[in-house]
Amino acid sequence: MISRSIISAVTFFCAVLPVMATAQMLSQEESDPRTLGWMEGFPPAPDKMVMQPDSNFFSFPKLRWTVCHFRELLPTEQVSRGIGAPEPLEYDLDEIAIDALTFKPMGSRETMTWKESLAANYTDGMLILHQGKIVYERYFGCLDEKGKHGAMSMTKSMTGLLAEILVAEGSLDDTQSVTSIIPELADSAFGNATIRQVMDMTTGLAYSEDYSDPDADIWIYTRAANPLPKPADYSGPDGYFEYLQTVKPEGSHGEAFHYKTINTDALGWIISRVSGKEFTELLSHRIWSRMGAEQDAYVTVDGKGTPFAGGGMSAGLRDLGRIGLLMLNEGEINGRRLFPAEVVAGLRQGGSREAFEKAGYKTLKGGSYRGMWWVFHNENGAFAARGVHGQTIYVDPTADMVLVRLASFPTAKNAAIDPTSLPAYQVVAEYLRTRN
Amino acid sequence: MISRSIISAVTFFCAVLPVMATAQMLSQEESDPRTLGWMEGFPPAPDKMVMQPDSNFFSFPKLRWTVCHFRELLPTEQVSRGIGAPEPLEYDLDEIAIDALTFKPMGSRETMTWKESLAANYTDGMLILHQGKIVYERYFGCLDEKGKHGAMSMTKSMTGLLAEILVAEGSLDDTQSVTSIIPELADSAFGNATIRQVMDMTTGLAYSEDYSDPDADIWIYTRAANPLPKPADYSGPDGYFEYLQTVKPEGSHGEAFHYKTINTDALGWIISRVSGKEFTELLSHRIWSRMGAEQDAYVTVDGKGTPFAGGGMSAGLRDLGRIGLLMLNEGEINGRRLFPAEVVAGLRQGGSREAFEKAGYKTLKGGSYRGMWWVFHNENGAFAARGVHGQTIYVDPTADMVLVRLASFPTAKNAAIDPTSLPAYQVVAEYLRTRN
Repeated sequence: MISRSIISAVTFFCAVLPVMATAQMLSQEESDPRTLGWMEGFPPAPDKMVMQPDSNFFSFPKLRWTVCHFRELLPTEQVSRGIGAPEPLEYDLDEIAIDALTFKPMGSRETMTWKESLAANYTDGMLILHQGKIVYERYFGCLDEKGKHGAMSMTKSMTGLLAEILVAEGSLDDTQSVTSIIPELADSAFGNATIRQVMDMTTGLAYSEDYSDPDADIWIYTRAANPLPKPADYSGPDGYFEYLQTVKPEGSHGEAFHYKTINTDALGWIISRVSGKEFTELLSHRIWSRMGAEQDAYVTVDGKGTPFAGGGMSAGLRDLGRIGLLMLNEGEINGRRLFPAEVVAGLRQGGSREAFEKAGYKTLKGGSYRGMWWVFHNENGAFAARGVHGQTIYVDPTADMVLVRLASFPTAKNAAIDPTSLPAYQVVAEYLRTRN
Repeated sequence: MISRSIISAVTFFCAVLPVMATAQMLSQEESDPRTLGWMEGFPPAPDKMVMQPDSNFFSFPKLRWTVCHFRELLPTEQVSRGIGAPEPLEYDLDEIAIDALTFKPMGSRETMTWKESLAANYTDGMLILHQGKIVYERYFGCLDEKGKHGAMSMTKSMTGLLAEILVAEGSLDDTQSVTSIIPELADSAFGNATIRQVMDMTTGLAYSEDYSDPDADIWIYTRAANPLPKPADYSGPDGYFEYLQTVKPEGSHGEAFHYKTINTDALGWIISRVSGKEFTELLSHRIWSRMGAEQDAYVTVDGKGTPFAGGGMSAGLRDLGRIGLLMLNEGEINGRRLFPAEVVAGLRQGGSREAFEKAGYKTLKGGSYRGMWWVFHNENGAFAARGVHGQTIYVDPTADMVLVRLASFPTAKNAAIDPTSLPAYQVVAEYLRTRN
């Protein structure tokens, strides 16, 4: 049972396992969790049960229910919004015009409307803010305005933002070695990397994701991270922190961008050690409790209570919009400054485009990665948080636009979703930039 | 590992296992989780780790940390407060005078001050409301105003309240048999009990709590309720609903009060079937999202996502104060009526005192139990929600007083805490009733 549960949980913890598409993939509408009736009834019928460990809860189409219900499956920590009144976002809706916008998906000659792109991308929530006001807001599938949705690897961008804040404030020196902050990592591949290399994921780490190899690092990591009790004969690392100490080097630090979640787990450790606060607590203290959030967020934890800084957060759509506004307005929201403007200026500048090029992202050519944010280096100066299965907070400074998409696309990798979304974002940005 | 984990979790799921007192019991101050340093550090030192399954997380003094952190140990469901602004409670603090009040604990000739009683009872949070305003509010141990604390069996009173609302509104007939609502329970001991007998716990159910007997019902229930994956060779019931179907009769229904948590799990099933909403969702819909709550609450779930209606809720101190105000003001709060006044009138009237007497509660002589609330039948007309380790929402209509105590008393049973608390509540009530 344990092993099946671990297999079932792997894509959540690692957020990379490609889900096999069925020959006839269900559409967004056909795979709507309300249509399929997952977890409905008291009790749900056996074939409608998502939660049981052998039910493969993070495979499509079940994942379309699961993305809104991680806390029912796993232990979590709260990211408190505090207890005061939320600061509501203003509305200036322009949904009919936006729905009708058309664009050509990458590599396609056919045009697609904005509205069609939402279904094509299995969108669960779409929020567009222009000049600080909501111009577009839609919910589908498992999500509504009171719900929370897995942010997946957008969690990394929260961890990276907190690290950038500590760097800008001088309490973390990104030129120092990881060992100088976390001596326990001295003998691991992280030890002689700089904090900046970890923040920009240019470390050289041996971390294989060959799912067919039972000894692959991904499996060791997954077993370590799983909050369920370890089997009696288990002798591997227990929790994120123990796993990180076992990571071996591969190649050199600082040469190429390698998107490996374990960098963020190491960064989570670093910012906790420096701040004296857990990732969840620091995120609440610095951001969530000060941005007028309307909902708490939460983060899954390992068996020792360490939050999954690399991918464990769930949050509401509009609260992620507030994160986008904070980034767009360089640290200010509701007339309050939460962090120095140089934080965003640094992120927008981006990381090494040369290092990024080596990773071969076809849909992100010319881009870079810095402080756990993706930088497009396009004429709009756009940058984004991104997570598997279609999550994004997309910030376009030129258009004064923030766009948040929460989704449950059948396959994990965003390369499959970018063709019908990045060009669409550009079209919306152009529309908003020129409409006044 | 699983078995150790189950043992560790048993007092949480069943909330009845007496915790052995050490010869020299640590005082409230000595056992403060911040003093003992539980779960502090990145990572916590091995001897400061509470979360691991073999650490016996619900034994004193670790339980003083655990009562504020259930969601980090177990899967949970949210009880949403909604997304609007909370409605703050007003203050009229009178803490110095209340701290100095004195009383004689039951069976004692020595007087004790109110302030001393807080430490004697390992209080984590104490809130007193008089005429709708906060006159006293203190936090200790793991709790602060932004924290949530295990409500333990006060959860039952939420389940009972929802059932009473459905009865008062006519959508649930409490004279009907359980089978008429839940046919799956027809062959169990619940089948021919009336809904009212379940609500008042006068059912005759075979449910032994002999911890030394590995086949005792308490163990079967605990294994069924545990959200962790079942061992491969497990063949028992999975989840609350399956367990309830296996309960055998013992004695007759309607004759005596027997405090058995499984009644509340059955009632949780009944109100879900009738309302079409899970316990958590119904509680949010009818109460939590309408009372001006400042925090969401949450409830632990079994492996099939069924909320633990018998004991799984955690909530903030002031939000439990709002529940008390709702009861005191017979369904009204902030000028809104949330349920018919007859709900509280019925509860205050109480259950069968004759049936209650047979259970032999020495500290609650003359009392009764109705709709999962404890009724004292004293001259103040007081009634209460109560949970192991010292939880209470105590409502005194004559004094226009609500008192909420959250605590982590070393032993589970409230019989050990009542002597230093029930007389103290009476003294505070007298003081408040006469001070103006």
